[in-house]
Amino acid sequence: MGALEEAHLAAAAACACEEDGDLELLGGEEAEAAAADAMEPAVRALLAGLGEDDRREGLRRTPKRVAKAFRDGTRGYRQKVKDIVQGALFPEVGVDKRAGSAGGTGGQVVVRDIELFSYCESCLLPFSIQCHVGYVPSGGRVVGLSKLSRVSDVFAKRLQNPQRLANEVCGALHASIQPAGVAVALQCWHIPLPDNLECKTLQGWIRASHSSRSGVFEGENITFWNDFLALLKFRGIAIEVDNHSASIPWCPLRSLEVPLSSGHRKKGSTNGMVSAVTSMLLSLGEDPLRKELLGTPQRYVQWLLKFKASNLNVKLNGFTLSNVSLYERPGGGTSDHGAIRSELHLPFCAQCEHHLLPFYGVVHIGYFDNGSGEGIDRSQFQSLVHFYGCKLQVQERMTRQIAEAVYSVSHSGAMVVVEANHICMISRGVEKIRSNTATIAVLGQFLADPSAKACFLQSVLDTTESAV
Amino acid sequence: MGALEEAHLAAAAACACEEDGDLELLGGEEAEAAAADAMEPAVRALLAGLGEDDRREGLRRTPKRVAKAFRDGTRGYRQKVKDIVQGALFPEVGVDKRAGSAGGTGGQVVVRDIELFSYCESCLLPFSIQCHVGYVPSGGRVVGLSKLSRVSDVFAKRLQNPQRLANEVCGALHASIQPAGVAVALQCWHIPLPDNLECKTLQGWIRASHSSRSGVFEGENITFWNDFLALLKFRGIAIEVDNHSASIPWCPLRSLEVPLSSGHRKKGSTNGMVSAVTSMLLSLGEDPLRKELLGTPQRYVQWLLKFKASNLNVKLNGFTLSNVSLYERPGGGTSDHGAIRSELHLPFCAQCEHHLLPFYGVVHIGYFDNGSGEGIDRSQFQSLVHFYGCKLQVQERMTRQIAEAVYSVSHSGAMVVVEANHICMISRGVEKIRSNTATIAVLGQFLADPSAKACFLQSVLDTTESAV
Repeated sequence: MGALEEAHLAAAAACACEEDGDLELLGGEEAEAAAADAMEPAVRALLAGLGEDDRREGLRRTPKRVAKAFRDGTRGYRQKVKDIVQGALFPEVGVDKRAGSAGGTGGQVVVRDIELFSYCESCLLPFSIQCHVGYVPSGGRVVGLSKLSRVSDVFAKRLQNPQRLANEVCGALHASIQPAGVAVALQCWHIPLPDNLECKTLQGWIRASHSSRSGVFEGENITFWNDFLALLKFRGIAIEVDNHSASIPWCPLRSLEVPLSSGHRKKGSTNGMVSAVTSMLLSLGEDPLRKELLGTPQRYVQWLLKFKASNLNVKLNGFTLSNVSLYERPGGGTSDHGAIRSELHLPFCAQCEHHLLPFYGVVHIGYFDNGSGEGIDRSQFQSLVHFYGCKLQVQERMTRQIAEAVYSVSHSGAMVVVEANHICMISRGVEKIRSNTATIAVLGQFLADPSAKACFLQSVLDTTESAV
Repeated sequence: MGALEEAHLAAAAACACEEDGDLELLGGEEAEAAAADAMEPAVRALLAGLGEDDRREGLRRTPKRVAKAFRDGTRGYRQKVKDIVQGALFPEVGVDKRAGSAGGTGGQVVVRDIELFSYCESCLLPFSIQCHVGYVPSGGRVVGLSKLSRVSDVFAKRLQNPQRLANEVCGALHASIQPAGVAVALQCWHIPLPDNLECKTLQGWIRASHSSRSGVFEGENITFWNDFLALLKFRGIAIEVDNHSASIPWCPLRSLEVPLSSGHRKKGSTNGMVSAVTSMLLSLGEDPLRKELLGTPQRYVQWLLKFKASNLNVKLNGFTLSNVSLYERPGGGTSDHGAIRSELHLPFCAQCEHHLLPFYGVVHIGYFDNGSGEGIDRSQFQSLVHFYGCKLQVQERMTRQIAEAVYSVSHSGAMVVVEANHICMISRGVEKIRSNTATIAVLGQFLADPSAKACFLQSVLDTTESAV
């Protein structure tokens, strides 16, 4: 607060030459590459624990990719807020305080809908954030708008929980901008366990709202806070003040039973996986004995083990050859096929074998029945999708495998469309948050009969909400 | 097409070490910094032509910022597609072609809703893109999904028009992946002239859809193309095939009369500005005499000149002191103020003085009338907004200036909320496409009377579509 501090501004301006450049990482590129290299053996240990052969083509460069992605996704540990804000404080005239608040004196500034990704400190999975940051300028100076986003990202790119993230962004902005006050509101979404997944969009995800405030946003005069909430409402953003829930863990993996002592009950390979994850935490400079991180390696390993390579015959109980007789068509031909049937919007969650990050969405299956009017039970399809989805996968292969399995039962024809969001497209380099990938497989009669294919695709369209 | 080429894949794999890193620019960082430095004088010439003093605080580092941003936004000239795709081709089994198409053989893959920004070659303003890319794998190999986005971005980060962008992305993907075919569909939005602006969202922007296809997507068998369109429809994306409109220029600045010969009718400063922009084109390796670039420097200068510093008294005709007598309140006090009035959703387009890029949105104005029931005409407010908006600005200052101007007429109280999208937050480093900034100024009675403020904010909320 107080008047324009010329000296402070001059000093800030002097440091400004780098303001618009990429944030340099402490230690530089070479140190970063060396740190990523050092992490590769840990990723190899995780792949081995999953029963995978890291020499197979799709996995050969996965350790390098995962290590680089993990370092990149946690780069906030090696960034300094001071470097971001210092060069971007601009003198800006305000109004006489008695007249009101505007410009450089008390005129609230709110950047809404900053999209971020962070990593859950309880399980190491990424979580999605809509971040809203407000501040009230003081001392006749404002900060470049993009800096509110950049500072938020520094703390998002660490292992976090939503409340601490809100607190750290608020505290850092208050200390670096020295405004009259800062308000931070976060809406966060955490991927659910793959067992209970309905996550074509963020529906079905675990949601939490958290906020943090300083200065004029605190205390009994709630006028600034009310203005902040009103400006959020203009964008349809309703922040429930449920900071009380901060004591309730939001991470769904916390509900898993996790043995904290690794000495018993677990096989050697699991111990090795837990040690590997612990070493990744250490390489970030984190303390694995910090309260919030106790059990994190075990939880991440438990998540990964849900995608462990497994045996077809064990899992695909209902959907095996025993069914084939039921659906085998008399002539085996393609001209007198039965009616087109479909099971649509079957949810799945897979693990991308190139990045060890989830991709999730829905599977649509079309097939011909045997003319008797009997179809295959939806639960059997869901098991099929779960089997082919719940492993280290790529979407193209999963689509083909599901189609082939359905074709092995309904010989006339099978068609599969998979629609998925890839976390690796979001939390990694390209950061295309809204991108969504569709793959399609067309077998048998659907290939020869464009009208059958069109009919199936139309049934998907008719059952899809066009608003995405 | 063709069988799995082991040798090709091995060669590709050998080049793969850099695949997940940031794309290195040809020439490296130092060359890039030198090129940006060399561009600063051109930006200074533009500021001088606008009648601005580049030593004033807000503009002092603008030349450096603009030069870096322009180089960054056109980095595609210095990136190679080969470097992106080579390391990311993965062997992936397909199905027997007679059975159908799936996986590595003909199983179509479509990445939808890749959000990009490019620069209009006719006027150098950024335009917004939803990019949808499909391909049909061949030769038993698929490409990493993120590469479809990365390759598209290489061509987006050049001076473009939508049809050429679609063609170049399609051609580059076809050549580098060697698939059975590639389909590219783009939905593009170009900012309109500030004179006829209704651009709170992308409504009011000039829209164009363009597509490009190769291989199996071409020709008489339109089954793959139909599948592509169907998969887009699932996301609510309707591509009108209006490639015929490619011959009609979509850039709204093309409707401006632009003198191509700079010798006459223009003042020296404008000539200097045109030369400065021409030098920026040259520094990209572009040929300013290329047909599509003829007139581009002139058009960009004309756009900038719409934001030339101008004189208050000349422009603010209706909204000057002559009005004050009409609205001056008898007692001048604040307790017996009149009714709260508001003019909401007044569109504006300003030019960010830190980045020379547009920010645009709406202004909401609240004030007290003089008790007579008479208000100020909406057209007068729109002139006021145009005056304070249509120049090199920052949002905080514009908010204060509009509030002070209204307060000078309605002494009881004035309140202003500005909501804006900043192109500099989108097309530059932080790339927060959906972020939106709100600023608020509260003067006079609105400061003392929370219920008046709440009433005004509620009127904004009531007239705002919550779906953003």
